[in-house]
Amino acid sequence: MSAPGTPTLGIGMVGYSFMGQAHSQAWRTAPRFFDLPLAPRMRVVAGRDGDAVRAAAERLGWDESVTSWQELIARDDVDLVDVCTPGDTHAEIAIAALQAGKHVLCEKPLANSVAEAEAMVAAAERAAARGVHAAVGFTYRRVPAIQLARRLVEQGRIGEVRHVRAQYLQDWLADPQAPLSWRLDKEKAGSGALGDIGAHVVDLAQFVTGELLTGVAGMLETFVRERPVPASFAGLSGEAGEGTGPVTVDDAAVFFGRLAGGGLATFEATRFAWGRKNAIRLEVNGTRGSLAFDFEDMNLLHFFDATDDAEVAGFRRIVVTEPEHPYGGHWWPAGHGLGYEHAFTHQVVDLVEDLAAGKQPTPSFADGLAVQRVLDAVERSSDAGGGWVDIP
Amino acid sequence: MSAPGTPTLGIGMVGYSFMGQAHSQAWRTAPRFFDLPLAPRMRVVAGRDGDAVRAAAERLGWDESVTSWQELIARDDVDLVDVCTPGDTHAEIAIAALQAGKHVLCEKPLANSVAEAEAMVAAAERAAARGVHAAVGFTYRRVPAIQLARRLVEQGRIGEVRHVRAQYLQDWLADPQAPLSWRLDKEKAGSGALGDIGAHVVDLAQFVTGELLTGVAGMLETFVRERPVPASFAGLSGEAGEGTGPVTVDDAAVFFGRLAGGGLATFEATRFAWGRKNAIRLEVNGTRGSLAFDFEDMNLLHFFDATDDAEVAGFRRIVVTEPEHPYGGHWWPAGHGLGYEHAFTHQVVDLVEDLAAGKQPTPSFADGLAVQRVLDAVERSSDAGGGWVDIP
Amino acid sequence: MSAPGTPTLGIGMVGYSFMGQAHSQAWRTAPRFFDLPLAPRMRVVAGRDGDAVRAAAERLGWDESVTSWQELIARDDVDLVDVCTPGDTHAEIAIAALQAGKHVLCEKPLANSVAEAEAMVAAAERAAARGVHAAVGFTYRRVPAIQLARRLVEQGRIGEVRHVRAQYLQDWLADPQAPLSWRLDKEKAGSGALGDIGAHVVDLAQFVTGELLTGVAGMLETFVRERPVPASFAGLSGEAGEGTGPVTVDDAAVFFGRLAGGGLATFEATRFAWGRKNAIRLEVNGTRGSLAFDFEDMNLLHFFDATDDAEVAGFRRIVVTEPEHPYGGHWWPAGHGLGYEHAFTHQVVDLVEDLAAGKQPTPSFADGLAVQRVLDAVERSSDAGGGWVDIP
Amino acid sequence: MSAPGTPTLGIGMVGYSFMGQAHSQAWRTAPRFFDLPLAPRMRVVAGRDGDAVRAAAERLGWDESVTSWQELIARDDVDLVDVCTPGDTHAEIAIAALQAGKHVLCEKPLANSVAEAEAMVAAAERAAARGVHAAVGFTYRRVPAIQLARRLVEQGRIGEVRHVRAQYLQDWLADPQAPLSWRLDKEKAGSGALGDIGAHVVDLAQFVTGELLTGVAGMLETFVRERPVPASFAGLSGEAGEGTGPVTVDDAAVFFGRLAGGGLATFEATRFAWGRKNAIRLEVNGTRGSLAFDFEDMNLLHFFDATDDAEVAGFRRIVVTEPEHPYGGHWWPAGHGLGYEHAFTHQVVDLVEDLAAGKQPTPSFADGLAVQRVLDAVERSSDAGGGWVDIP
Repeated sequence: MSAPGTPTLGIGMVGYSFMGQAHSQAWRTAPRFFDLPLAPRMRVVAGRDGDAVRAAAERLGWDESVTSWQELIARDDVDLVDVCTPGDTHAEIAIAALQAGKHVLCEKPLANSVAEAEAMVAAAERAAARGVHAAVGFTYRRVPAIQLARRLVEQGRIGEVRHVRAQYLQDWLADPQAPLSWRLDKEKAGSGALGDIGAHVVDLAQFVTGELLTGVAGMLETFVRERPVPASFAGLSGEAGEGTGPVTVDDAAVFFGRLAGGGLATFEATRFAWGRKNAIRLEVNGTRGSLAFDFEDMNLLHFFDATDDAEVAGFRRIVVTEPEHPYGGHWWPAGHGLGYEHAFTHQVVDLVEDLAAGKQPTPSFADGLAVQRVLDAVERSSDAGGGWVDIP
Repeated sequence: MSAPGTPTLGIGMVGYSFMGQAHSQAWRTAPRFFDLPLAPRMRVVAGRDGDAVRAAAERLGWDESVTSWQELIARDDVDLVDVCTPGDTHAEIAIAALQAGKHVLCEKPLANSVAEAEAMVAAAERAAARGVHAAVGFTYRRVPAIQLARRLVEQGRIGEVRHVRAQYLQDWLADPQAPLSWRLDKEKAGSGALGDIGAHVVDLAQFVTGELLTGVAGMLETFVRERPVPASFAGLSGEAGEGTGPVTVDDAAVFFGRLAGGGLATFEATRFAWGRKNAIRLEVNGTRGSLAFDFEDMNLLHFFDATDDAEVAGFRRIVVTEPEHPYGGHWWPAGHGLGYEHAFTHQVVDLVEDLAAGKQPTPSFADGLAVQRVLDAVERSSDAGGGWVDIP
Repeated sequence: MSAPGTPTLGIGMVGYSFMGQAHSQAWRTAPRFFDLPLAPRMRVVAGRDGDAVRAAAERLGWDESVTSWQELIARDDVDLVDVCTPGDTHAEIAIAALQAGKHVLCEKPLANSVAEAEAMVAAAERAAARGVHAAVGFTYRRVPAIQLARRLVEQGRIGEVRHVRAQYLQDWLADPQAPLSWRLDKEKAGSGALGDIGAHVVDLAQFVTGELLTGVAGMLETFVRERPVPASFAGLSGEAGEGTGPVTVDDAAVFFGRLAGGGLATFEATRFAWGRKNAIRLEVNGTRGSLAFDFEDMNLLHFFDATDDAEVAGFRRIVVTEPEHPYGGHWWPAGHGLGYEHAFTHQVVDLVEDLAAGKQPTPSFADGLAVQRVLDAVERSSDAGGGWVDIP
Repeated sequence: MSAPGTPTLGIGMVGYSFMGQAHSQAWRTAPRFFDLPLAPRMRVVAGRDGDAVRAAAERLGWDESVTSWQELIARDDVDLVDVCTPGDTHAEIAIAALQAGKHVLCEKPLANSVAEAEAMVAAAERAAARGVHAAVGFTYRRVPAIQLARRLVEQGRIGEVRHVRAQYLQDWLADPQAPLSWRLDKEKAGSGALGDIGAHVVDLAQFVTGELLTGVAGMLETFVRERPVPASFAGLSGEAGEGTGPVTVDDAAVFFGRLAGGGLATFEATRFAWGRKNAIRLEVNGTRGSLAFDFEDMNLLHFFDATDDAEVAGFRRIVVTEPEHPYGGHWWPAGHGLGYEHAFTHQVVDLVEDLAAGKQPTPSFADGLAVQRVLDAVERSSDAGGGWVDIP
């Protein structure tokens, strides 16, 4: 909560489906559990369908709704634009908002192409010179166990990184009769498993190790190339709500790469792993120890300290809910675990604190571009039949 | 969210520390994710310290604050009184509220004695005859995995219950230098590990099996009988913030009992289990299968179906986040797990739906009394040196 | 293996079913992986059925077979008698063997009654004065993870013991149609789940903590009182191989007790826990840390060190296969786990080393009697309706 | 055990270190727990150092020892040659043995090069025409959980394979001061992590899915290029037992590939994963379900059946010790788990049964060549900078 007299931060959000709901919960909740230096005010949400966006505004807790993101950006009472739309609109909205002097929080992946992402970085740099800041929503960085992982790497407790193995496994497309959605349309989504979920594990690998990938080799695959068109889909793309339509993105991506420090990293992203609902797995092996995380047990971090006596060395199952832990002490007593949405609240907290301090929030658009370059290199490798592609 | 024109339900909450925070989050959040038949309005919170309760009201989202629970009960705009105070005040507040025609949600344990609990049940029955209802906050019932466990027992998928083993393990008193608090003061808290956490596993055992305990034998223990008095404690009890003071409740309780259907149940509640932060473990073995739950992995339920072919039989690790699961489809996609606080939101949802339907919400005060009788029998068994005590 | 010129130790084994097989594998295997100070010679196995015992001798690797245990004991080339028969014969055989100057390894439980066990202890003490030693086969002590647990307690890394929770869960009687066997016949087996499997967890609790139980309260239950008589059963008891026969032992036992140092211990033994095949679970919580073990993952010990920094404290999952670990370095490289039977080999190794050194092997008959007294106290408590029973 | 009159199978083993110990335990143990159609006789072990091989013969249970493998092959009482030497000698010994009319069991990897492996396959095919058979020791196939995995795939319970992810993680080289050994010498070992442990997971992936890899892209890495020379090493290679020497093999390998059926497979093999002792992990995702295995819990197989009702679907934790399971009923009761060495016993059992039946045992040398071709393709891909390499 903000102390009386705290300056406000007017928020405008574009988009209100899955990500919009998660962001709204975060804006509503952050001030209840954290002392924020700026008091967020949920001013306005934008969407194309007037009735729907009005209903969303009421349900999600926004003061008003508008049917044009341009209108939202133009408002004086909006200090920050929160972009929760599909990837094909990120560049246009975010750049316009920054040019209008609004801070931006943009959902990931930053853009649908490297070129768009580069334009966004350029816009962000120009804006930063004027004290206006942009961040990209790689929210899983804000899971306490991931923050702790980063902290341990920074403390040198893992030593030099030798290996990263990162997987993002889901199963919602494993059934060939699962319907089409905008996430399977290359125009809207840019890419499939690679950009939607692979992007997360690339960002996590780079964030936790503090190292960028310098090259990759990979392969994309679309296992199911036609899927039923649901009635609800027609509104989005104009296709009829019957028959089947083409899947134009990848169902799965596998790749490996080299980290700047010389370590090897392997990646897999798929929506075809029956029984794995949202398994984000990250393992790091270094010269002094190892880390392991699985989002299916998101409140845990596993840490092997190779300096422990051999007799009692073993992966430590750390329940990351202590006051000593990242974001600890703000929620519930130890052991009373957090859920998916809390990472969004932490994202808001960190963002607001950085903005109040005049600091560049993280991950920046440049960080988002770094991920985009990896995704692009994987696509080019796959197109070329799996060969190595350097990342500039 | 409630549709336009939905009748409102004015809420007044008494107490605003740990439980008050959790309840507030639930009242704020429930209408955002569920279509409620009554629209909760967070009217007023009561506490003795005017400045503190005013600050709490703002932080927690209550319209107003008052310094007297009697005043809160007297308000016309309060339809439901949410009692979040220590156990020694439950009976007085809840009975007064019911007599004033207010619905009541009372934190557990229902009371500090069977006599108080019986008086509360009597008041609840009188109120119910007038359409005013009371419920007790055994919130862990609202964890989706626990609801699924109950559902499977009801479906007969476990068969007749042979065994329950239930443990609630914490470690916040394992350090002998951990300070005193009201939870260690028999006057305030009624009992220690038994009433605070043991009550939860007794309720879960009775809820999931659908059977009451008919008798128990048990033993209580206070391992550390003097603890440092923290400065913050003085305000509560008048003792100086220095030296040590007596622990007048149990540190740990162990007991076993018989279920109405003939099964055997074992229980343990302790705050001395180093490394176990909030480990609520429940296992049920029946004639057709078994269930296992541990709150340290609260989004999981483990189910063994003895009718599966032996070749492929095994405990199924069910990630309880599918649309088919209890409370499923209201939050996030499958695999995007929930946290501790969500059970409080579910409690509000179920309560509001029952009140709107004119139904008795569960767990009722009678359910709370059933737990209280078990706790009382354990205390009497322990006082008598561990012998068997029938539960009427 | 023994060096050339190593003195031999002639072994005679009585009984050759499940336990006889496990002991034979141990006698065969121990010299292959360990340098033993005495070279075991598998001289003779005894059983009542001449053809069967002859076949068993060949299969199990014994030089000869006899149809009388008295004959086996009388042989000059037998230095140690390994008693693998049901509990009703332990006292007679073991006492006779000790009187004949033979070392004895006797399967658990030591006897079917305290009186028998006391007579065996007396015989063992008389024998010990002449350098003849007796041990009882609580084999699970020899699982490396259990030995490591004991070592950590001895090193003070757990501090004072506050809690033990011990369970032995199986499911082979959960099906009411599972047939009768001698293990369900009180005459033969002495007791049911309590004596067969409960004995193991009582011994493990006392061994790992180094403390005896001073009293218990408990309850036994026979859920299924009649079971089908299998054809193979007739030979054992004279009953026809049809119809049903009575189960005269307990199906399950629950009890709690007090350790000599003041800690609380809970126990459960059952063959009705569907899905748990041989789940021996032991948890110990002390003032400085905790231990957890489950035989379903027998190569692991979990250790929480409360002196670790809170930021990185967590249960350590120790893979107990390093050279630094008990029995480490004799088998395979780290991580190449052991199985059930290896504990029997370790038992042979420890026994032979103690005998060669003229030391009393452990667990002694006195240790076995200590377990027997606990079982007896549980039975008396159950008979008396669950009250407390002191253990002398 | 073999019935009286069972024909014998004379065994000669070449090499007696780690693998020789494991194979010896298998030859000793198999007849004790399984009814074999041929009775193995442990005739002779060969090694270069006369004293050492004589001591090994006694310790490991071989009747005699010789100092020349040629002499061993020449013996009339040897029917099968068990090759347990480093990979550089496999081709010469195995081909000579086959030409001499001896069955061959050859440790993996089959050879140090594809050319050698092809020669071995040719020799095996010529021998097979004369009823003499050869098999390669990919022992992990004989872990019961792996056999069950294969059985479930064959039954169609996984459907078409979409994904395999296979990892073999160890940590014994993670310490840069870990000494040199023959396994780090390309001359002796052929390759490093790739051939030593990667070979296993390649074979497991191909065996469980029943599909061969059609192409791969990969990268090898040697993180530590100089290591201390231990005194014991001098004898092997002539180098002094001081200073450091070069590591000429890979420390780690990462690669992905395409299965014949179109699925994607990822692989990683490393000895630098601190805390992972012998973690062989295999996951398979198909159109109807998923499988997961980790050798750290070798008695378990996890199976997700996508045809289960969503309410109760979850990975089933199958304890693979039931009589219905592969190799079930021959060892101990359910839940009394097996260890590393049991897979070697199962290998002997399957081999002897196939030889007695005149069947080609598996994995054949051709299966071993198929693995070798994958390893070779990975090396070529790595040499070429990570590009795709088709496998003929």
